[in-house]
Amino acid sequence: MGTNQKQILKHILSNTDYSMDNSSRSLISLEGLDRNDILGLLRQAATFEAKPDRKILDGKVVATLFFEPSTRTRLSFETAVNRLGGRVIGFSDAATTSSSKGETLKDTIMMVSNYADLIIMRHYLEGAAKYASEISPVPIINAGDGANQHPSQTMLDLYSMLKTQGRLDGLEIFLVGDLKYGRTVHSMLTAMRFFNPTFHFISPEELRMPAEYKEFCRENGIRFTEHSEFNENVISEADIIYMTRVQRERFTDLMEYERVKDSFILRNDMLAGTKPNLRILHPLPRVNEISQDVDSNPKAYYFQQAKNGLFVREALICNALNLL
Amino acid sequence: MGTNQKQILKHILSNTDYSMDNSSRSLISLEGLDRNDILGLLRQAATFEAKPDRKILDGKVVATLFFEPSTRTRLSFETAVNRLGGRVIGFSDAATTSSSKGETLKDTIMMVSNYADLIIMRHYLEGAAKYASEISPVPIINAGDGANQHPSQTMLDLYSMLKTQGRLDGLEIFLVGDLKYGRTVHSMLTAMRFFNPTFHFISPEELRMPAEYKEFCRENGIRFTEHSEFNENVISEADIIYMTRVQRERFTDLMEYERVKDSFILRNDMLAGTKPNLRILHPLPRVNEISQDVDSNPKAYYFQQAKNGLFVREALICNALNLL
Amino acid sequence: MGTNQKQILKHILSNTDYSMDNSSRSLISLEGLDRNDILGLLRQAATFEAKPDRKILDGKVVATLFFEPSTRTRLSFETAVNRLGGRVIGFSDAATTSSSKGETLKDTIMMVSNYADLIIMRHYLEGAAKYASEISPVPIINAGDGANQHPSQTMLDLYSMLKTQGRLDGLEIFLVGDLKYGRTVHSMLTAMRFFNPTFHFISPEELRMPAEYKEFCRENGIRFTEHSEFNENVISEADIIYMTRVQRERFTDLMEYERVKDSFILRNDMLAGTKPNLRILHPLPRVNEISQDVDSNPKAYYFQQAKNGLFVREALICNALNLL
Repeated sequence: MGTNQKQILKHILSNTDYSMDNSSRSLISLEGLDRNDILGLLRQAATFEAKPDRKILDGKVVATLFFEPSTRTRLSFETAVNRLGGRVIGFSDAATTSSSKGETLKDTIMMVSNYADLIIMRHYLEGAAKYASEISPVPIINAGDGANQHPSQTMLDLYSMLKTQGRLDGLEIFLVGDLKYGRTVHSMLTAMRFFNPTFHFISPEELRMPAEYKEFCRENGIRFTEHSEFNENVISEADIIYMTRVQRERFTDLMEYERVKDSFILRNDMLAGTKPNLRILHPLPRVNEISQDVDSNPKAYYFQQAKNGLFVREALICNALNLL
Repeated sequence: MGTNQKQILKHILSNTDYSMDNSSRSLISLEGLDRNDILGLLRQAATFEAKPDRKILDGKVVATLFFEPSTRTRLSFETAVNRLGGRVIGFSDAATTSSSKGETLKDTIMMVSNYADLIIMRHYLEGAAKYASEISPVPIINAGDGANQHPSQTMLDLYSMLKTQGRLDGLEIFLVGDLKYGRTVHSMLTAMRFFNPTFHFISPEELRMPAEYKEFCRENGIRFTEHSEFNENVISEADIIYMTRVQRERFTDLMEYERVKDSFILRNDMLAGTKPNLRILHPLPRVNEISQDVDSNPKAYYFQQAKNGLFVREALICNALNLL
Repeated sequence: MGTNQKQILKHILSNTDYSMDNSSRSLISLEGLDRNDILGLLRQAATFEAKPDRKILDGKVVATLFFEPSTRTRLSFETAVNRLGGRVIGFSDAATTSSSKGETLKDTIMMVSNYADLIIMRHYLEGAAKYASEISPVPIINAGDGANQHPSQTMLDLYSMLKTQGRLDGLEIFLVGDLKYGRTVHSMLTAMRFFNPTFHFISPEELRMPAEYKEFCRENGIRFTEHSEFNENVISEADIIYMTRVQRERFTDLMEYERVKDSFILRNDMLAGTKPNLRILHPLPRVNEISQDVDSNPKAYYFQQAKNGLFVREALICNALNLL
């Protein structure tokens, strides 16, 4: 072994200031969080809203791995990283990745964890993010795993309710549309158990809130009502109306879809008799379930809601990296 | 309402230093610009050419939304943002976006304007950028809307003419190829009305300059000639030859296409008798309408022209953000 | 010519501090490198491993042009640029580029060289990177050209061997799998000619090491053996086992593929009698040629190997830009 090789090895062995963070600070779901944890995260989001541009992530690299496309969520997270001074690597479409060569999720995660300080991932399979967090040496933020969890969406929903209502406790929340498959409504329902809400489930028969979530409400003392009609009378007491898409492909009976598809659309005229503090939320993207004429109604809040996602995600990123 | 929630709201209410720019500084077309406006932008471009790497955009996020792919324009704009110290978010292909889920352009723009300080967009529909500028709280730069406008291309064309000729006034400009559908030639023609040009339109019969643009020339005192032959005699007095692609799909009569397709190709031997100051421009990408042997002729300028796009776009970006 | 235009031209002419690097520092293959060159690059890689986050590339723009997708290589290079403070532009999929409009490689390279200080490219055609380096005014790093060269992969393979074995000289190296088409094994073989290795080629008959490479070994005094069986006895003396994929599409005789496909898989039980210093390498992505149960064996080194790619690529980038 020559002098050259010895010098190289000496350089390598002197490497003391570089180590990837072997962290357990992944955010996979909100299930383990209690009232104080949630309020703590919302408080952090508020501090980022007060000052969103910081250099906290200077020198950090964050990977955004979208095995399933999602423009809104990806751009929101990438904006958060950039506004905090970090750098982004990743992909927006698994079709151009090694996954298409048959690589396992494990290998992709192990590979990327060599490069990034944090991995933000969306995957089409339930449990993918949890699995990734179990093998990854760097923290994982779940940006949606199939129909399962999307915790940053839920946090921005809660942040939007708190901002617009001045409180999270004791709200009258109307969930409208696809309550059977809607990931966001299930996740919000469970996260709100600490805040004494009253839920109103408004959906077509085929897309009703699943029995397990109604059972969850009963076990946690959450009041709820169910409706299969959506009109001005039903929503007169609402503090929050949370709209979701009714998708054709969710129906086994297409005649049933044709019958109900126009019945769960929010029109501006329906808002005339609603409470002044009412705000309309929607996880977006919207197709036609909220009429365009609602957009200019001061009760429409879905675009600001999306903006809140930036502040919430800045908080979640810094939290995952233990920088707060 | 507990102490925690009050604190959070206090944080939010103290938010005074963050506001998106409700600006009317969008750049949709050059139609409203006069001679001084155009020269002012070119002067700004020149200052960026003298010093292209600056930190003017430090802390800014710029979105590049390409609903239709365009590598050259996208990379040029993204380089401009990066060389100015800003950060880029966006997509290069609408197929991986929420648009594919049925989201409207309005909703996409409203969403992205939550995240970015400026939106640079290319869209396949005419008027898309104008519409976006009417609803967006942040400025829009049109990077091409269908066959309509592509103002940054026109500005770099003008900048290239000024740099190579030492003047914009009184030039002999030869437009060659597809003058019927060519967005760039129409846009250049109208922008040059302040500079007393003489235009020479050289095209197949099927792709002649539309009557409305010839009428525009007459109304604005712009001299022009028309030719359906392209050879060394025609171009002997040219200061600028601006080549464009003759695309097969533009022809209703494919026999006519076969007849003319090789007649509007610029070969190096055709340049022997041309003026020393002649420069060849092309908006690129080129297919075969300029022979490869022209590339090494000092009169070829299309690659430098593309480089000028960087400086012009730095100026347009800073102008849209009111940073100049 | 008015005062305005004179001022603009004065600005342009005063441009003295901006010039693209007309460099011959491209890295296309390792063929021209000698023992000292290779060790010099490895030493540089070691200094980056000791300190990977630097601001060396502040103000630089690097283009990653992937005409053929490759997540691992792209993310590794992009991480390197970002950790060094540079900015990335580019594309990950030629389908969304001007290439799809018929643009030549030359024009794409000329265009991008206007914007970037360095071009890192992967192309599906052999020789593409070499050609690009001949016409580009900025340096090119070849990130893989067809079945031909992938020099950064070879450098990280060598770096991984040096790190794990404490030396590059006199190693017993076992190459397993597809030795006929495997770009990485050919490239490593030629680069190791300076280090007195003994190679062991283990492959199905259809995928044997080509005659030209065996001839290369004889000419350069490199010892080698050949095996068509892969089992614990064969590998008992190995310092390095370098696994590669056996791909179905490489076989003309699919019955032969079915017969051998499970014979070139490394299982954990095969490692019981191997030497303590043995390390398993793989260029990744892996499909099934290394059993999952090997991953937790301390002799598995393929994920760390991928991480070494970051440091090696930081060195290669800075070297190409003449910043070391």
